[in-house]
Amino acid sequence: MVGPVVGPVVGMVGAGQLARMTFQASIALNVGFRVLAAQPQDSAAQVCPGASFGDYRDLDDLLAFAAGCDVVTFDHEHVPGPHLAALEQAGVVLRPGAEALRFAQDKLAMRERLVALGVPCPRYAPAAGLGDVTAFAADSGWPVVLKAVSGGYDGRGVWVCGTPERAAEVLAHGITVIVEEHVGFERELAALVARSPHNQGAAYPVVQTVQRDGVCREVLAPAPHLPAARAREAERLALQLAAELGVTGLLAVEFFETAAGLLVNELAMRPHNSGHWTMDGARTSQFEQHLRAVVDLPLGAPDAIAPRAVMANVFGSDDPDVYSRYTHVMAADPGVNLHLYGKTPRPGRKIGHVTVLPDTALGDDIDALRERAGHAARYLGEGKD
Amino acid sequence: MVGPVVGPVVGMVGAGQLARMTFQASIALNVGFRVLAAQPQDSAAQVCPGASFGDYRDLDDLLAFAAGCDVVTFDHEHVPGPHLAALEQAGVVLRPGAEALRFAQDKLAMRERLVALGVPCPRYAPAAGLGDVTAFAADSGWPVVLKAVSGGYDGRGVWVCGTPERAAEVLAHGITVIVEEHVGFERELAALVARSPHNQGAAYPVVQTVQRDGVCREVLAPAPHLPAARAREAERLALQLAAELGVTGLLAVEFFETAAGLLVNELAMRPHNSGHWTMDGARTSQFEQHLRAVVDLPLGAPDAIAPRAVMANVFGSDDPDVYSRYTHVMAADPGVNLHLYGKTPRPGRKIGHVTVLPDTALGDDIDALRERAGHAARYLGEGKD
Repeated sequence: MVGPVVGPVVGMVGAGQLARMTFQASIALNVGFRVLAAQPQDSAAQVCPGASFGDYRDLDDLLAFAAGCDVVTFDHEHVPGPHLAALEQAGVVLRPGAEALRFAQDKLAMRERLVALGVPCPRYAPAAGLGDVTAFAADSGWPVVLKAVSGGYDGRGVWVCGTPERAAEVLAHGITVIVEEHVGFERELAALVARSPHNQGAAYPVVQTVQRDGVCREVLAPAPHLPAARAREAERLALQLAAELGVTGLLAVEFFETAAGLLVNELAMRPHNSGHWTMDGARTSQFEQHLRAVVDLPLGAPDAIAPRAVMANVFGSDDPDVYSRYTHVMAADPGVNLHLYGKTPRPGRKIGHVTVLPDTALGDDIDALRERAGHAARYLGEGKD
Repeated sequence: MVGPVVGPVVGMVGAGQLARMTFQASIALNVGFRVLAAQPQDSAAQVCPGASFGDYRDLDDLLAFAAGCDVVTFDHEHVPGPHLAALEQAGVVLRPGAEALRFAQDKLAMRERLVALGVPCPRYAPAAGLGDVTAFAADSGWPVVLKAVSGGYDGRGVWVCGTPERAAEVLAHGITVIVEEHVGFERELAALVARSPHNQGAAYPVVQTVQRDGVCREVLAPAPHLPAARAREAERLALQLAAELGVTGLLAVEFFETAAGLLVNELAMRPHNSGHWTMDGARTSQFEQHLRAVVDLPLGAPDAIAPRAVMANVFGSDDPDVYSRYTHVMAADPGVNLHLYGKTPRPGRKIGHVTVLPDTALGDDIDALRERAGHAARYLGEGKD
């Protein structure tokens, strides 16, 4: 940014689609924005001028990047905790800070803290070996869920294990895990809130997320037929957690909705897939909100501007030519909002998302909206109806 | 753009705020986008990676820029006509093309063509000297309006002249002008349409523009209390003109609404100030629509997503520190959408705009929306309530 009227310069570690969309928001605010990318092909590095290149696992690279920024924030949770502490000791302003990020990086620390705060969670236990897993399962029954305390392997960190043999396979990778009960939930919900250093909070409407094979496919905003009291409970809990954990920026809280009530599944302290609908459907997008929060500006109004919105993720296939399918998708439904991330398509790789809002002509029936969003996303990603 | 799945690369000549906001739209579409800027401080050059630098009045600079683009389009009307013709002869794809752009560049050619098409316009005449002006005024009465056929001086191209002496002052600058009757209009309206090379058309809702000292201050979308028949008439006329003049991309038609009906005041063949509200208030922003049209993709739905929207331009003052006023504006009204252009503030210089949509709590009364937008714009630009 060369702009003459910018305020603080925000640096984002990581240059995936979250950084790309945060950069889009930074243009309208005229807030300076830089990314630390691994390579020029990274989603945000393609569009953000003056991207820095380096390794987020290398403290020197992080320090060099931070030297050009007033505030440093994150596109992902993978910066090693000791590096975060070292950055803060060197005077770098991290938002969220190292203390808060620990609870997004370390699932055992997160569970312990949440339980200490009295927040309802699935039953869990540390699991040093198969014996701990089978002992836990003797109480909870099979299947159980193994979760990497941090990281994972093959790009995954969560495994539903129906047998001791399957659990042993996961443990054989030598990662540190916790074991959790397999919750028989009715559906999954997500609450997205922002908190600023001034301690201002703002909560987006609670959404339903629809996952398949452990991957988010769809988001319905607001969550259909959610009783107002339960929506308020989820929002309040997310705002409370943001304050208790000292989060600055966004906090996404993923819930299981069960017959007995809400259980917290996961936390993320950054813009989140469950909030992509806000780009087209809320008064302030989550990306602008994150920027406002991390530079400590007053937060934007988080309310929806349409009675509902449906977001569907676009997954790649073996056919790389997404662009040639634009014509079909745009001609078939001119009301779909398209967001592509500039990523080389591969089967199962998230390369974009689409959002559909209600339409006077086409109506606001939730099934019809899901059909429209799903069709556009499938056709764009895979060329399939 | 290094993106692996981009389609055609669009090059925009000129790097003002229109190019800046078109770049924002290009990120979501993952369409390649470049600008030809005069200098790194230009609004779009600050945010758009790999900006080219050159002079839009220099054919060699234009040819060099075009060599890296599949389609060339424009942020302004000032590229000399002979250069446009030379670019097309060299095989460059211009959208809009040279033939169409002539009617946005040459007000005499525009008037002659519109009259030939039977489109209602103010009475006008070419004016080679003061004698032509006074002869015209003998019929129409004073004041008359002098308009530079192209360009102007001191950044202006339109002068309302109440006396022959004032007209003589304007003519003394040696520019070629036409003289027009001073229309006693009730208000000003604008119709914004897109047309693609495939001849698809799309019309945004007709808006009211509010000018002061010849400069647009506010846009009310849709135009309040506009009879449906008159709105359809304006949309149809704009779509007809886009087709008759062979426009590809956006066409903005500015109207005077008079007791006797609509008169066409001006044409612009690019994203237009009267369409800035579409970024926050329409299903497809005018910037995305322009990109879709110039690369010949199916057009997006142009309908509004809220019952009304008010846009107010932000003008600079002697105080350059816009950023420090963010806190007040954002805290006072978290529902205002802010768009800053990265320009150094100067008195009277347009440095951004704000949009306000109706709000459940604050209501959708048009006067209340105008008050909110006006307050935010004035405070942001000038620090005044």
